[in-house]
Amino acid sequence: MASPTTSNISKNDFEEVLSPPPPDMISKRSYQTLSFPTFSAQLAEEIRNNQYDKQNNPTGVVNLAISVNQLMEDEVLARLNKESTLTLTSQHQYYNDTSGLPELRKAVANFLTRHHKPSEAISPENLVVMNGLTACLDALSHTLCDPGDVVITPTPVYGRIFTNFHDRAGATVIPLPCQEMENFALKEEDLKSLIKQYLDDGQRVRVFVLLHPHNPLGHVYSTEQLRNIMKICAQYKIHIVIDEIYAFSIHDRSTHFNSVLGMESLPDPQRTHVLWGFSKDFSIPGFRIGVIHSTNPWVLSCLRTLSHYHSSPPLTQHAAASLLSDVEWCDDFYVPTNKNKLAAAYKKACEYLEASGVKVHKTVAGIFLWVNMQAFLDECNEENEMALFMMFLKGGVCLLPGKKLYCAHPGWYRIVFSVKENVLEEGLTRIQAVLSKWKKSKESGSR
Amino acid sequence: MASPTTSNISKNDFEEVLSPPPPDMISKRSYQTLSFPTFSAQLAEEIRNNQYDKQNNPTGVVNLAISVNQLMEDEVLARLNKESTLTLTSQHQYYNDTSGLPELRKAVANFLTRHHKPSEAISPENLVVMNGLTACLDALSHTLCDPGDVVITPTPVYGRIFTNFHDRAGATVIPLPCQEMENFALKEEDLKSLIKQYLDDGQRVRVFVLLHPHNPLGHVYSTEQLRNIMKICAQYKIHIVIDEIYAFSIHDRSTHFNSVLGMESLPDPQRTHVLWGFSKDFSIPGFRIGVIHSTNPWVLSCLRTLSHYHSSPPLTQHAAASLLSDVEWCDDFYVPTNKNKLAAAYKKACEYLEASGVKVHKTVAGIFLWVNMQAFLDECNEENEMALFMMFLKGGVCLLPGKKLYCAHPGWYRIVFSVKENVLEEGLTRIQAVLSKWKKSKESGSR
Repeated sequence: MASPTTSNISKNDFEEVLSPPPPDMISKRSYQTLSFPTFSAQLAEEIRNNQYDKQNNPTGVVNLAISVNQLMEDEVLARLNKESTLTLTSQHQYYNDTSGLPELRKAVANFLTRHHKPSEAISPENLVVMNGLTACLDALSHTLCDPGDVVITPTPVYGRIFTNFHDRAGATVIPLPCQEMENFALKEEDLKSLIKQYLDDGQRVRVFVLLHPHNPLGHVYSTEQLRNIMKICAQYKIHIVIDEIYAFSIHDRSTHFNSVLGMESLPDPQRTHVLWGFSKDFSIPGFRIGVIHSTNPWVLSCLRTLSHYHSSPPLTQHAAASLLSDVEWCDDFYVPTNKNKLAAAYKKACEYLEASGVKVHKTVAGIFLWVNMQAFLDECNEENEMALFMMFLKGGVCLLPGKKLYCAHPGWYRIVFSVKENVLEEGLTRIQAVLSKWKKSKESGSR
Repeated sequence: MASPTTSNISKNDFEEVLSPPPPDMISKRSYQTLSFPTFSAQLAEEIRNNQYDKQNNPTGVVNLAISVNQLMEDEVLARLNKESTLTLTSQHQYYNDTSGLPELRKAVANFLTRHHKPSEAISPENLVVMNGLTACLDALSHTLCDPGDVVITPTPVYGRIFTNFHDRAGATVIPLPCQEMENFALKEEDLKSLIKQYLDDGQRVRVFVLLHPHNPLGHVYSTEQLRNIMKICAQYKIHIVIDEIYAFSIHDRSTHFNSVLGMESLPDPQRTHVLWGFSKDFSIPGFRIGVIHSTNPWVLSCLRTLSHYHSSPPLTQHAAASLLSDVEWCDDFYVPTNKNKLAAAYKKACEYLEASGVKVHKTVAGIFLWVNMQAFLDECNEENEMALFMMFLKGGVCLLPGKKLYCAHPGWYRIVFSVKENVLEEGLTRIQAVLSKWKKSKESGSR
């Protein structure tokens, strides 16, 4: 193992370095939008500029914190660079329908209909395309919430759910904490009582957001459980936003994914909105393509207006459409091969980490592990969680600490396993090396 | 001349077809975002599906309403499809800095420095990239204004200035009407008194937006005039947003364009923000790339946060950067050739229209003519302006009526001249045919 670069970031660097703006320099609302170059931004920048590469940068950082799937990289690149898929023609050079190329909306509708098997085919007219799910969530926050309105989501959760609904659109995201001792299950009664609590407090609860499959938990939910949750939302006229960005990243062979798009007679169809995109399941986050499905004409109308500000280039939309329309490549080759590769990588990462004494939360979906390292912490608190995180970083491997995922229980980390095989191996080796060094220093009391 | 298709759109179709939403179905703020499929949307849809093409659709509509430059189409396509410019590699497949690829920000900074010749080179650190200028203006409206704050812009003006600042961000755009009898000059004293009027009324005036070169007027402003306007804005601490999207579309050979980026000692640099993009000057609106230049750290910080929702794919950013970085192609070939072609097309369109009895407002920049057809209207009012517009549409050619550009004086139209030569010829022929038919019917009193 190459000796990894020591990270230059120290704790003090996380402090804010931009002073507050003078009065009236920017709008009042954009105070919530100001970003101070702290932790995440500096870290992302540093890691982006110092990525591990076996040949060219063996002392760089192995990034297992950012959720990308590189297992199908060669296959996706080969398909997209085939023939004239990415050749620019006058058809895609100029302005197009900002709410999505008809070709792409049709291809997505057909693809989702083929796989989720709804009783009635999904209509391209119910789809709006935007430049990534990040933009889709922001646009939905504007459309469904006024500033200060309450959005609820089960935690731990992908951290940007909080920022996407709040940064610009100003909704307040409230966590529904799932409990470690209950295996992070989503409890319907907890959702109900949280809604009541905020309503009793005079607040407007507008949206329940569910990541399905869940990030970072890797859960999928049964149709029955989904229906029960939807009934609660319907009872209080709360919109439900189901983010299915990992719908085709199910690595467990015996698991069937129940898309809301395939469900019959939804409790409140006009308040049910489903998201999907190309960033995870087709490994092209750089194409910036997210899709919102809704049957609500007013929501669709708003989203189409907003799509002027969140439009995606026709060229990349066309190329993405060609992946789905090539049914043989897509359904017979890509989707099953991707699942097999995810299954193998999941198994490998699990086995290695368990052998290192790490407890792995068993999952069926997603491209990451959710792991418990509490056994390595003297005391189970946020400070120690972050201290171990910094040790990993100094040891040349970056994981995501549970704190950044709004986890109520310290000592959990998310580890992405869908990187290239040699990168995963290097990352796992470094994790083990850090853990045994950390353990030894603990045992000798030198920390 | 082929006999053009009669448009299927009649006046009644322009009425709203979506009923208001039930109470609490969508957020309060998104009522202003709801789009009703009326005039523009239906028209755009119809024209998009029935475009004139000499070979394949000779009875389609000649679209001289949408501002695209097709004069360099072959050259731009050839350059972008050259070698591996648009070949996807793993470098551009995944996530990147949402506020713009460093490669693109550097290429734009160098390009603008080469051409606008500021005393100090433009820094890539002062640039934020978003998916088109439409998104840039929306993001600036969020950053600089709170809902209801006042934005002022001289009219007539590109209509989306009104929607971009208002649709989502909720600022109120107030026209500063330029007068026909003053040749639509921008009068500093009028700006000053309009600002005072709104301030006296207790309103917050936050932004002055200037399109430079102006759309649809085709004006460029002298450094002295720009400085005077900036001084007024500085006096009232009003941000000035200069949209230079047509900076390299100067068709008059003797005219020098004074970019604000080349000006020395600005009156209020922290409140001066300049926009530029690839949609007009490089004919690739489909790439969705706009750039904001600012030296204000708080504005830049907000914009970088917002860029998560307005990001552009790395692949197309890389391709756009390659156009500017190929200095020989860009500076020695593309920019001057484009200007020459614009000059020739401008001259041709002017001469043809003037021979048809149309008064052309003399311009030096832009890719459109601003023309006066009042002589063809019995009475100079909006109804007649729209009636003549409908006659043009029925005659197979689409222009933009001044009303859609917030012109205070009926009888003006914007005509894009930078379409393909045979399309321009067909369009001009159809305009002339409609005008002589219209004139005859007027003379015989049969209307």
